[in-house]
Amino acid sequence: MLYLGVDLGGTNIKAALVDENGEILQETGTPTNLPRSAEAVCDDIAVLCNQLTAGRDVAGIGVGCPGTVDGGTVLYSNNLDWHNFEMCSYLKAKTNLPVVVGNDANVAALGEALVGCAKGAQSAVVVTLGTGVGGGVVLDGKILTGYTGAASELGHMVIQDMPGAPRCTCGRSGCFESLASATALIRMTKEARRTHPESVLNTLAPAEEDVTGRTAFDAAAQGDAAGREVVDTYTHYLAVGVANIINIFFPEVVGLSGGVANQGEKLLEPLRAAVEPMIFGHEFAKKHTRITTCTLGYRAGVIGAALLAKSQAD
Amino acid sequence: MLYLGVDLGGTNIKAALVDENGEILQETGTPTNLPRSAEAVCDDIAVLCNQLTAGRDVAGIGVGCPGTVDGGTVLYSNNLDWHNFEMCSYLKAKTNLPVVVGNDANVAALGEALVGCAKGAQSAVVVTLGTGVGGGVVLDGKILTGYTGAASELGHMVIQDMPGAPRCTCGRSGCFESLASATALIRMTKEARRTHPESVLNTLAPAEEDVTGRTAFDAAAQGDAAGREVVDTYTHYLAVGVANIINIFFPEVVGLSGGVANQGEKLLEPLRAAVEPMIFGHEFAKKHTRITTCTLGYRAGVIGAALLAKSQAD
Repeated sequence: MLYLGVDLGGTNIKAALVDENGEILQETGTPTNLPRSAEAVCDDIAVLCNQLTAGRDVAGIGVGCPGTVDGGTVLYSNNLDWHNFEMCSYLKAKTNLPVVVGNDANVAALGEALVGCAKGAQSAVVVTLGTGVGGGVVLDGKILTGYTGAASELGHMVIQDMPGAPRCTCGRSGCFESLASATALIRMTKEARRTHPESVLNTLAPAEEDVTGRTAFDAAAQGDAAGREVVDTYTHYLAVGVANIINIFFPEVVGLSGGVANQGEKLLEPLRAAVEPMIFGHEFAKKHTRITTCTLGYRAGVIGAALLAKSQAD
Repeated sequence: MLYLGVDLGGTNIKAALVDENGEILQETGTPTNLPRSAEAVCDDIAVLCNQLTAGRDVAGIGVGCPGTVDGGTVLYSNNLDWHNFEMCSYLKAKTNLPVVVGNDANVAALGEALVGCAKGAQSAVVVTLGTGVGGGVVLDGKILTGYTGAASELGHMVIQDMPGAPRCTCGRSGCFESLASATALIRMTKEARRTHPESVLNTLAPAEEDVTGRTAFDAAAQGDAAGREVVDTYTHYLAVGVANIINIFFPEVVGLSGGVANQGEKLLEPLRAAVEPMIFGHEFAKKHTRITTCTLGYRAGVIGAALLAKSQAD
């Protein structure tokens, strides 16, 4: 059986025809062209879906959408500026197919859990280290959505409740996101660059705006002490958040995605070493959570969305 | 149909005959009499079960056991000093009934979720504020056990990663348990009693060992500033942990149990006020987690254990 997966972002709409194993058979897309109405955006999604469906037996459509999704309704999406939009019924009317909508981060986590880095695992938590820290939790093949559809806001778990903790975009301080996002890494790198004029950080990033999420890792690789300190501090905060997630869920897999995760083993190896002693009962555990990087890249969104449609059809 | 629920503690073994609605029909118990072998303890459990079963049609036995439980095996129990004990098969052989074992905190949470404070709710997280901070997560009527059976160690979520954060029994610092357990409340009260000789705390607790989890609440009720400060600080830490739990799970209900929860609305009202602004997206949420106290008391253990047996039989 075939399914359609749609990944609706603030910049682009991506859509794919996906088989029941999560393999992409055909892909398409169009710019989101914001600002415009929810109906206009959905009309474009319907056009993409109808193109991909043409002449084929498609069982349903899954959509990953930024914001808080409850049932078929997008309660609130900051990126899209949507409020209480009944996306499912609107899109169903335009495509004559069953439609299911989920939060985009959760849907991408479902893709990684079912056919990506956690394929075959009982449970997985995906942590996205980008501008913010996003999360998705998949337990026994199902997304954890909670009572309101708003669960899995792992980035807004406070790990540093103290005066002077860095401010988060959510308004609070000391959130996992404010300490372990790529934005936090860049902030720490900029600070180290200023306080250590002798550091290679200043060669790699001659101007402050040249600093990226790679700068500190690259400096550390060259033996730079200030770069190493930034990487160690960042890794510590990431470890505290990941260890909390393990102590809470004890998932079979934690998968990291987003720009920072591209460091691969340079990040994973010290991270695993830092996490292990933080796990409650680690001395006695016979099974351990596997900490790894995600494998589907940007396609996790459309694949996960299609597999969400499949899970609803099953 | 009838089920047996067993709550195995370090001091007592409690057992009850429970109907499918979670009503207790008959109760019994015996001291655990530690230290002794796992087999000897289970022989006593079997005697209690066989007494309660006599002449009745019982579908199965559920057991709540302290420690890490995976499948039918108790991997490790610090309280009982058990290592890799195959409890299910041992007890099944002695009773000729199906047996299922779960962690005691998780099993008690199942009782509260199904027939206690969260009856009818889609999901519930129970947080026990006692010597430590225990937790149990029930999603769609099922206990969250994770890959290893060790999930829901909510007390060992670090909320204050900073130098000087209070040490936890687990060896780390800044755990939710080290800031929001009854033990933490008593520690803060003792500190305030010493630094504020003028405080009512010294009248209520003339000697340091007179301090209990109630002392600061009682002082605050009398208008004592130092007592009020302790209560406010404690409530803040509890709110940070509860808000993290809500941002992660967004359960329909958070139920508090343990000694501190006996403060009832004196604790709940300021707690709810502190938690609300900490919830991600609270400005837009239409549904809110209900924060309340547990209702089954010490019987949550045997009732939850019996309902665990029921869920396995279903």
